[in-house]
Amino acid sequence: MTSQKQLRFVTLLGSLRKDSVHATIARALPSLAPEGITIASAGSIRELPHYDADLQMEGFPPALLAIAAEIQEADAVIIVTPEYNYSVPGALKNALDWLSRLTPQPLAEKPIAIQTGSPGMIGGARAQYHLRQIMVFLDAYVLNKPEIMVGGMYGKIDPETGEITDEATAALIAQQLAALARMVRPDD
Amino acid sequence: MTSQKQLRFVTLLGSLRKDSVHATIARALPSLAPEGITIASAGSIRELPHYDADLQMEGFPPALLAIAAEIQEADAVIIVTPEYNYSVPGALKNALDWLSRLTPQPLAEKPIAIQTGSPGMIGGARAQYHLRQIMVFLDAYVLNKPEIMVGGMYGKIDPETGEITDEATAALIAQQLAALARMVRPDD
Amino acid sequence: MTSQKQLRFVTLLGSLRKDSVHATIARALPSLAPEGITIASAGSIRELPHYDADLQMEGFPPALLAIAAEIQEADAVIIVTPEYNYSVPGALKNALDWLSRLTPQPLAEKPIAIQTGSPGMIGGARAQYHLRQIMVFLDAYVLNKPEIMVGGMYGKIDPETGEITDEATAALIAQQLAALARMVRPDD
Amino acid sequence: MTSQKQLRFVTLLGSLRKDSVHATIARALPSLAPEGITIASAGSIRELPHYDADLQMEGFPPALLAIAAEIQEADAVIIVTPEYNYSVPGALKNALDWLSRLTPQPLAEKPIAIQTGSPGMIGGARAQYHLRQIMVFLDAYVLNKPEIMVGGMYGKIDPETGEITDEATAALIAQQLAALARMVRPDD
Repeated sequence: MTSQKQLRFVTLLGSLRKDSVHATIARALPSLAPEGITIASAGSIRELPHYDADLQMEGFPPALLAIAAEIQEADAVIIVTPEYNYSVPGALKNALDWLSRLTPQPLAEKPIAIQTGSPGMIGGARAQYHLRQIMVFLDAYVLNKPEIMVGGMYGKIDPETGEITDEATAALIAQQLAALARMVRPDD
Repeated sequence: MTSQKQLRFVTLLGSLRKDSVHATIARALPSLAPEGITIASAGSIRELPHYDADLQMEGFPPALLAIAAEIQEADAVIIVTPEYNYSVPGALKNALDWLSRLTPQPLAEKPIAIQTGSPGMIGGARAQYHLRQIMVFLDAYVLNKPEIMVGGMYGKIDPETGEITDEATAALIAQQLAALARMVRPDD
Repeated sequence: MTSQKQLRFVTLLGSLRKDSVHATIARALPSLAPEGITIASAGSIRELPHYDADLQMEGFPPALLAIAAEIQEADAVIIVTPEYNYSVPGALKNALDWLSRLTPQPLAEKPIAIQTGSPGMIGGARAQYHLRQIMVFLDAYVLNKPEIMVGGMYGKIDPETGEITDEATAALIAQQLAALARMVRPDD
Repeated sequence: MTSQKQLRFVTLLGSLRKDSVHATIARALPSLAPEGITIASAGSIRELPHYDADLQMEGFPPALLAIAAEIQEADAVIIVTPEYNYSVPGALKNALDWLSRLTPQPLAEKPIAIQTGSPGMIGGARAQYHLRQIMVFLDAYVLNKPEIMVGGMYGKIDPETGEITDEATAALIAQQLAALARMVRPDD
């Protein structure tokens, strides 16, 4: 596989707080990825204003264009997000609402993987199916399996060391990244 | 029924643009409501920052507290919103994410009606079921029927005059408001 | 509370196999219910043919009419069901498809509680939101909370003794039954 | 394109009644397909008993094995189905429940297109997103676009002549079949 094209994945993070466990997951991904894959942040969704068609008339926000360029150039996107109120965080949905207005729309035909976690047992599952429905409209290609829904996440991730300490979770995430890579280059 | 307590409904609007058709619908509601019901805006969701647990530590935004107080005092809430990307607009979800953090949580046990529209035929149906799932977590009581999904809305609402020109749509909305009132005071 | 009207709840079971853990849950419910509530099966969904409008023209199946009568007379319905393929079992959905064709439609305005379980951690959550969407059309009143999603159910229920051995699960189910009772008679 | 491998698509029909409009759609598909594609029924779901793990122990039903073989050999599957009660018909879900138990599971990695219709304006949209969630578990690859949701279907399809009389609907279905073919052989 040494002659393979390097792949570049970017992460889109749904949580804004500084010590976010999801941010820890996103930062741990490069260490779990198969060789030949770089993973970096697509940029923060924090600076995006609430989507408003009047604002759009004045021009797209620079922070949006930066995220869009990262996604456009990436081979795949990994959405790492908490579930808020049984659905997608508003701030993340807002980023998707902005992205959907661009031409070309950067998520179109883009391979996507979803990773959610929660303190409870459900692991953010409810947010995932909402995200998948949104991605139908955006014409993204969402990986089916394995699904990453980290229940009881505070016992499985150590924000201090930045490590995913639960081996089964780390192994499943590594499998998902490998599956996402196969989705990008199916002939490997 | 002349001796009945007056009811107060408030609207939560999911669109931010100035000439929003959904804003037109929200403003038309008082003219369609049964006697004895006032309907006013719960306030704009525009000024709310993206939800962030770190920000919350510094105190809840004043705009949030104003909306929450309106909802708390209201007998019911009418969510009037476009569908963005097959789901709830990010800005509206963000408002719900903030509201969910308050104690008391103002939507808990609150009767809710949903009204969506779209230029196409589906009328925002997809956003409604996402909203309903969100409302399970928030423990709100969402009216089942009639559902208001205004397909082809640009031919049914006149933003210039502020009128819902399609009689069937206006009649159905009036029915929904009456059903919401019965949900609030079932013994009428 | 001694003078209160007795309440009657009926269960609708989504699993057909003889040693179903969900059947065990359904049978354990009377022992977890508040005083003054009887809980019995609404009847088996097994004998219902696949819904077919041509068949309906020949008359509704007797097994359907028996289930419908039980639901009609009950104060509330408890749906106890596994999740199959991230949704409602076909056989259970088929029963609902038949029930939806009756006049009066027995689930209309009926209080409903949902209980699901699974061997894995998610506990059947995905099936619950599909059921809730179905119940919007059927105009049933589905209890919001507490939600019963029994993850890891084989360690929590003993089909041999018929007991729910996990105390937290048993307590949560008891809470749900009490909440359902309050939904039926809100003035208690 | 003369040297291309012929493609074979099969249909899975969610309605059982004899004069089903959805059956009319399914039968009209060959006339709308690009050259080089044959489309035939995968077989009727009518004879499948309700899924029951005890029954499965006695062996899979012959009708199931016949459908599974058709799907296994097909390049893609087109699910043509009405929406019942805001979701998938029970009989169709039951067929999927049975199919999910087979090894190999015939829908795994299979390209899928969905076609729904309704007398009203929504065109079966609600059933589609439930089907898509089910297909995540089954690891099928569901085509994103174009989505076929035929609102007002009784004015667009003539069961007598078997024709899709609405040109826009016929054209959109033809586009979907072409998109499904591209999903099967992306290098065309």
